[in-house]
Amino acid sequence: MKKESVNKVKSVNLNEIKDPKFLMDLSHKELDKLADDIRDEIIRATSIYGGHLSSNLGVVDLTIALNRIFDFSTDKLILDVGHQCYAYKILTGRSLEGLRTKNGVSGFQKCEESPYDCFEAGHSSTSISAATGFAIARDLNGDKYDVVAMIGDGSIVSGLSMEALNNLGTSSHKVIIVLNDNGMSISKPIGGVSKMFARISTAGGYNRMKVHFRAFMSKTRFGRRIYNFLRGIKNFIRRLLVPQTIFNNMGLAYIGPVDGHNIRGLERAFKRAKNTNKSVVVHVSTMKGKGYSPAEEDESGYWHGVTPFEIESGDPKNTHEGYNSWSHIFSDITMEMMEKHNNAYLISPATLKGAGLDQVFTKYPERTLDVGIAEEHAFTLASGLCKGGYHPIISIYSTFMQRAYDEISHDLSRMDSQATILVDRAGLVGADGETHQGIYDVAFLKSIPNVTVTMPSSIDEAHALYNESFNNHGPFFIRLPRSIVKNEPINKIDVSYGKWITIKDSSKKETAVIGVGPLFRELEKLVNESGVDCTLINAIYLIPMDLECIDSLLNYKRIFIYDAYSTSKGLIESIMAYLSQKHFNGLIKAFGVPNKFIKQASINEQLEEFGLLPSQILDELKK
Amino acid sequence: MKKESVNKVKSVNLNEIKDPKFLMDLSHKELDKLADDIRDEIIRATSIYGGHLSSNLGVVDLTIALNRIFDFSTDKLILDVGHQCYAYKILTGRSLEGLRTKNGVSGFQKCEESPYDCFEAGHSSTSISAATGFAIARDLNGDKYDVVAMIGDGSIVSGLSMEALNNLGTSSHKVIIVLNDNGMSISKPIGGVSKMFARISTAGGYNRMKVHFRAFMSKTRFGRRIYNFLRGIKNFIRRLLVPQTIFNNMGLAYIGPVDGHNIRGLERAFKRAKNTNKSVVVHVSTMKGKGYSPAEEDESGYWHGVTPFEIESGDPKNTHEGYNSWSHIFSDITMEMMEKHNNAYLISPATLKGAGLDQVFTKYPERTLDVGIAEEHAFTLASGLCKGGYHPIISIYSTFMQRAYDEISHDLSRMDSQATILVDRAGLVGADGETHQGIYDVAFLKSIPNVTVTMPSSIDEAHALYNESFNNHGPFFIRLPRSIVKNEPINKIDVSYGKWITIKDSSKKETAVIGVGPLFRELEKLVNESGVDCTLINAIYLIPMDLECIDSLLNYKRIFIYDAYSTSKGLIESIMAYLSQKHFNGLIKAFGVPNKFIKQASINEQLEEFGLLPSQILDELKK
Repeated sequence: MKKESVNKVKSVNLNEIKDPKFLMDLSHKELDKLADDIRDEIIRATSIYGGHLSSNLGVVDLTIALNRIFDFSTDKLILDVGHQCYAYKILTGRSLEGLRTKNGVSGFQKCEESPYDCFEAGHSSTSISAATGFAIARDLNGDKYDVVAMIGDGSIVSGLSMEALNNLGTSSHKVIIVLNDNGMSISKPIGGVSKMFARISTAGGYNRMKVHFRAFMSKTRFGRRIYNFLRGIKNFIRRLLVPQTIFNNMGLAYIGPVDGHNIRGLERAFKRAKNTNKSVVVHVSTMKGKGYSPAEEDESGYWHGVTPFEIESGDPKNTHEGYNSWSHIFSDITMEMMEKHNNAYLISPATLKGAGLDQVFTKYPERTLDVGIAEEHAFTLASGLCKGGYHPIISIYSTFMQRAYDEISHDLSRMDSQATILVDRAGLVGADGETHQGIYDVAFLKSIPNVTVTMPSSIDEAHALYNESFNNHGPFFIRLPRSIVKNEPINKIDVSYGKWITIKDSSKKETAVIGVGPLFRELEKLVNESGVDCTLINAIYLIPMDLECIDSLLNYKRIFIYDAYSTSKGLIESIMAYLSQKHFNGLIKAFGVPNKFIKQASINEQLEEFGLLPSQILDELKK
Repeated sequence: MKKESVNKVKSVNLNEIKDPKFLMDLSHKELDKLADDIRDEIIRATSIYGGHLSSNLGVVDLTIALNRIFDFSTDKLILDVGHQCYAYKILTGRSLEGLRTKNGVSGFQKCEESPYDCFEAGHSSTSISAATGFAIARDLNGDKYDVVAMIGDGSIVSGLSMEALNNLGTSSHKVIIVLNDNGMSISKPIGGVSKMFARISTAGGYNRMKVHFRAFMSKTRFGRRIYNFLRGIKNFIRRLLVPQTIFNNMGLAYIGPVDGHNIRGLERAFKRAKNTNKSVVVHVSTMKGKGYSPAEEDESGYWHGVTPFEIESGDPKNTHEGYNSWSHIFSDITMEMMEKHNNAYLISPATLKGAGLDQVFTKYPERTLDVGIAEEHAFTLASGLCKGGYHPIISIYSTFMQRAYDEISHDLSRMDSQATILVDRAGLVGADGETHQGIYDVAFLKSIPNVTVTMPSSIDEAHALYNESFNNHGPFFIRLPRSIVKNEPINKIDVSYGKWITIKDSSKKETAVIGVGPLFRELEKLVNESGVDCTLINAIYLIPMDLECIDSLLNYKRIFIYDAYSTSKGLIESIMAYLSQKHFNGLIKAFGVPNKFIKQASINEQLEEFGLLPSQILDELKK
């Protein structure tokens, strides 16, 4: 019924939008209709290309309201992470067609796409710091624009955000922070601050009642007087009774909570924020997944980031019968390790869904912990746990592990704490692009003493390495790629610590290929099929390297190094430096990812561009 | 007068202390006397060996009280950073004789020194995370000990601490946090949270009054009844009137503020904390530098970390006439750059005193910012500033820069933001030991695309590189060592981007030495004096390397690489890998710091141990 009446309202052709200026000409009914249409488009586009669904659906009304009160051709809008940029892209004239593919728009803010994007991110919690930088520059230049950072309730409690908030609390440079509070973060809310948000939001009903009361009283002059008198008393009582928010404590102004799906109310709040004379947090309550019922009802975070799906049923489009993601393979092995080792303790910094670890969390609630978006805390906590007698397992995406470089070095490695670190999405990641590539970790871990870094090429090796990580080697990293693998029963094998595995021995001993990971096993197949004569060495230990094994290759004529999962600054440079030390006289050819920020495309497209497909390596071998 | 009366009290021979158990037998008068004696010993030891003075003096009473209420042979005490461990070392039977030298105790907690140390640090803000880890392990094991984290007001607002506090707020694992609030941090307090602390502490007088009132009323039974009745009313009113602290907001209990120099009062607070059924913050107000008047009156942070000094006058013992620290050289050049570039903006994460930048902050208050202990925020803010049209200069110690790895990559380098980063204390740092070595940054920066990393060997080069950093090269790092240099007027020279400098050309072209930094210039002198024939290449650009220059050396018989400022995983490995790619057939000898955590000793002792003194390299050249 409601749907029908909305249908009569004038609608906007999303494909004809050039910039958000048209929003000023629409009525609130038309804006609501526009919001519905944008949500439908987001559902359509993510169902085809995959992407971040729930968070993007939640902020459509909010984004419309922001663009009505601010003009982001001069004002600055910084979207934290960027999990909520789709509506903004549409309103600023960018089509979601081809979203996250080689030729489409990015899934995050991207300066080269539009003058409406002033900053970029892909990692969480950078927006308030960046906004502070813009605000300082603005004030030094005597400019007048507004700087708005929109950030989620999960991101705002991360360390970087808290540092920025604390700084802003005594800064004269004004920033407007829009707290997009969907009470969800990526999965469930974590920590004391989220609990505080929930407490405040419960009081939201009071605010709605207040609006009605004011509207009623405003109808007569006498009513207005009574209202104003009562408001005076109320404000006094409120100061006494309502707990200060953490933001007030930090020295910021606070407005809220505001209903995130009431455009008119949002506009009012943003106008007030515009007129506040210091940095202010506008606390907006939104519903994650709004407009798509499977996502609205989702409590696990399943609909946070999605692969292509059928809109009607919600089922994923591409199922790979008999295959499994590496994340899920590792989840199964983690389950086994938790059972085997009573002192194993699993930590996830807000990626337990992405890493497929729900089953472990459900089965072992006492020995698992989601710390939220707090990578640094995860690692230092792990070191404390370890000194207390436990063996932490940390599951983390390669790219997010960057946040914890210091904690890996100073807290984990320096004290030689025993721990297993599952480095998920190691290697090229495809559609997420520059901000999410997992190709740098070997190079940066190499700079830290005492670490062991490994990468299995098969499920059997994954299992064996996981077992080995419990044998007192200090911090033990196991890298797993963002790809799928044939689901086969696990054969127990041994992997001696630090030893590489010769998977094919050449008779002529002229050419050797040192390779890494599952793609190397694909090369193995091609080599066997083609009959090319070469030795194949599976470098499952990246740090430390198997120097004895390299020594055994010194009389070869050609050494190829094939690591499609890291930049050339990782294993490749280390092997080459060692070969130079050993005066290797033969030909060295290295195939690795260039040390660059790699743009979005499918993983296969990315591999092909850099000549890293197994077939391309085979061609090189044949030369 | 007061001094005399104290002198009559029985005193403890500090050298005979084995563990803190003796504290239980002392009266509060004797404890106060002990505190005075410990302060005197701390002043004596730091006047000889240097170290952290002010923070250590501030916590003596606090440390005594803690050890009266807790038994840290089973309970766990984690001292954040460790700038406040000296009194604890004395109470646990460790002499400060030889403090921070090769054979003396560390300036930080150190597990191998004593069973009373359960965790180690040297970087800030790790204690609450580590304590959480211990608390989880304790509860899983069914143990009963208390876990206490002692942390300063500057460290607790750093991102890592805030992540841990947020986590604790909803955790069932109890930790006792002792907030050592001296209203100082390392220099002045930073940010909104510190301001809140100050507001709360102002109310401290009320608490003292309360104690007297209770004491008076307790004298009669009727008085006690009245007191209890009034207390009931008071608690009700207090709940209405007293603003909640940020800790309450996060879900933690809060006790305080407590006078940090009243042992009896501290004991009461700790007893209460011991009985609280959830994690609790005990807010203690201390006076930094207590017991040494120059340090008590210090507002700049001069007495935070000191070199040996005369106790009477407060003057430093070792002055090097005509020499200056590299930090101060760079401070002078920074002054010049701030004048020359209107868009230059200087950021320091709580190390402006250590880096000698006070003069710049005083002269340019509008274009300088101390963000406090917030390395991550410093870099992301810098990227925002840059996108807003400014050129940030970030002054940071090499070791603390580790905290910002992700922000350097994701926020600064990925968006190719223009910035100058002064990497202070690059190389071996001597007495601070494992946690502070600045030898890893080249290796970890190498893993990040788009960066330029340099190290001057002379003041002239420092000046030229600083100038060059403003010429649109993206993030431009300039490393400076912890040493002194002869103060000479600056000659203007040019350093072409990415080009190394041949400072000596051999006639025979058989031996080349590629070297880095001031120590390489010392080698140059020795080579010239000795008459050894060799080419000397000054690698002022570490990233990118000057490949053309390396190519010009390919026909040499011997290439030495001498980098005493980094591990071999930095420049050395990169040059070797390139030489292997170029099929260099000659001898390669590399002299770099091993990729280990290097223990405390003087810098010269450390260099000698690894064969990195210029004279040792000369000996190798002569072979």
